[in-house]
Amino acid sequence: MKKIIIGVMGGGRVSDEDMQNACRLGRLIAESGWVLLNGGRNTGIMEASAKGAKEAGGLTIGILPDKDGRNASKYIDIQIRTGANDARNYYNVLSSDVVVACKGRAGTISEIALALKNKKNVILMDFDLGSAFFEYEQEGLLHKAQSPEDAVNKVKEILNKIAVTI
Amino acid sequence: MKKIIIGVMGGGRVSDEDMQNACRLGRLIAESGWVLLNGGRNTGIMEASAKGAKEAGGLTIGILPDKDGRNASKYIDIQIRTGANDARNYYNVLSSDVVVACKGRAGTISEIALALKNKKNVILMDFDLGSAFFEYEQEGLLHKAQSPEDAVNKVKEILNKIAVTI
Amino acid sequence: MKKIIIGVMGGGRVSDEDMQNACRLGRLIAESGWVLLNGGRNTGIMEASAKGAKEAGGLTIGILPDKDGRNASKYIDIQIRTGANDARNYYNVLSSDVVVACKGRAGTISEIALALKNKKNVILMDFDLGSAFFEYEQEGLLHKAQSPEDAVNKVKEILNKIAVTI
Amino acid sequence: MKKIIIGVMGGGRVSDEDMQNACRLGRLIAESGWVLLNGGRNTGIMEASAKGAKEAGGLTIGILPDKDGRNASKYIDIQIRTGANDARNYYNVLSSDVVVACKGRAGTISEIALALKNKKNVILMDFDLGSAFFEYEQEGLLHKAQSPEDAVNKVKEILNKIAVTI
Repeated sequence: MKKIIIGVMGGGRVSDEDMQNACRLGRLIAESGWVLLNGGRNTGIMEASAKGAKEAGGLTIGILPDKDGRNASKYIDIQIRTGANDARNYYNVLSSDVVVACKGRAGTISEIALALKNKKNVILMDFDLGSAFFEYEQEGLLHKAQSPEDAVNKVKEILNKIAVTI
Repeated sequence: MKKIIIGVMGGGRVSDEDMQNACRLGRLIAESGWVLLNGGRNTGIMEASAKGAKEAGGLTIGILPDKDGRNASKYIDIQIRTGANDARNYYNVLSSDVVVACKGRAGTISEIALALKNKKNVILMDFDLGSAFFEYEQEGLLHKAQSPEDAVNKVKEILNKIAVTI
Repeated sequence: MKKIIIGVMGGGRVSDEDMQNACRLGRLIAESGWVLLNGGRNTGIMEASAKGAKEAGGLTIGILPDKDGRNASKYIDIQIRTGANDARNYYNVLSSDVVVACKGRAGTISEIALALKNKKNVILMDFDLGSAFFEYEQEGLLHKAQSPEDAVNKVKEILNKIAVTI
Repeated sequence: MKKIIIGVMGGGRVSDEDMQNACRLGRLIAESGWVLLNGGRNTGIMEASAKGAKEAGGLTIGILPDKDGRNASKYIDIQIRTGANDARNYYNVLSSDVVVACKGRAGTISEIALALKNKKNVILMDFDLGSAFFEYEQEGLLHKAQSPEDAVNKVKEILNKIAVTI
């Protein structure tokens, strides 16, 4: 009965183009019948991806760093309030069946790293991290996509391969 | 757009009668149009309340203490996997708009205490804690109910009084 | 090589008499050669117990709810900064070999509950919680003391009985 | 009264040479009068750096991912037991005045990322991450060292520049 959850990570301050891509990604995730999970705030990739998913009628989960919903995106249906600050990055990736990482800074990189450490498949969407995670690419856990469509196709392939842990 | 979340806390090992009451409570929560949130495991009040909510077609969220879904209830739609062990008790109550506490032991009492400390309304359902939280009863944060129906009526009253923090 | 850690819990706003008792308790813990651990803030039982321990030349650890040391007691040697808010209550008790609970409100009760759930011995020092934890008293995990001297004697008895998990 | 805490991060499985360097780093940290903090486990960089610090008579803190001390290094004086699994990586870096990152994999990279996000100075000791954190290098938060001696000199420079948050 467990629903499939796709985590979308990414920075709070990004370009308009990155926002549009995150919005399209959110829309495609919802259209694929998956639940979208992100960090829940009302900025950047979080706001944009939740907006896209809601516009397509999807369900959105936000794991907030805060104790309350004051800074939550209005496109988030389910606010998980942790008061955990950046420790919630860990919960974001553990709760995702697959992680798509859009552009971001150190916060997003911490989520990529925590996901890989916990053997989660991560798709970098138009986000170049050089050689930092090279060995995970070789192990087949780290993937690259150039567009939202490409990312969602990769999610489908991965979901077919892994047993979604019910 | 935020959905109203009712947290149901309670022990992992309880009597058949307590299980039946938790199941009825879950059903009534779903029938009221609220999301049910609990600790997500496949035992006791968690399993029973999620079962009741699902049988009535509701949405169920489980904030798991574990890193994966191995011990999750099959009646949980959305698994929030924290790997946080008992620290997840804090997230349970922060994420709930109102908390209903069924019978339990120290784990459940920790959730009641953390909820009250964070100014959440708590309804004790047929759970006698003596004088331990007397001052919160006097402040109007701690309420008592004798049955699932009584508890859900109290939730309604509380939701009318508080501004659900969107 | 692990040092023995005694956790002192208690409220942020307490009476002068409670402050003096917490200070004497801190002093006796340091004089017994144990490390004092508490919630690290500059108020109430935390401030008083750390002050007592430092005056007797002891080592003090504070597990702070905050991301930085702004609200830390100046009597804390080692600031563990968690940014975890009340989830740090769980770390407080897990890290303590024995917990002494002075008077407090729901925050302190959450620590007592989390300690007992995790099979830690807890000594209530002049803190009456009625029947809430009666079964843990019967199981021999929950103890009562009337004074700092009494509490420290009980800590000694408990340390002799339990194998301090090295 | 707050003691200066130097965090040493790094992998659980590293080469003999990396172990020797971590041990020498721990020794130099203790000889400089600082407290050494790490992830507390009995393997890799954690074990080696704690060993070095203890051999030089220093104080060692380990923030454990576990609920108990079963997998703790015997060179750790103060076991902070969190039961938080990888969320403890966040506490490691928040609690450190400066972070030295030895070689590691994704776990270590998550600590570097979380440290930089929280404006902590990080010294990479003989650990090449390519361009992943280039902007933080430009901002002067990310530093590079080739040896333990070099790293400790950089820590001294940084401590002179930053106000250690008391």
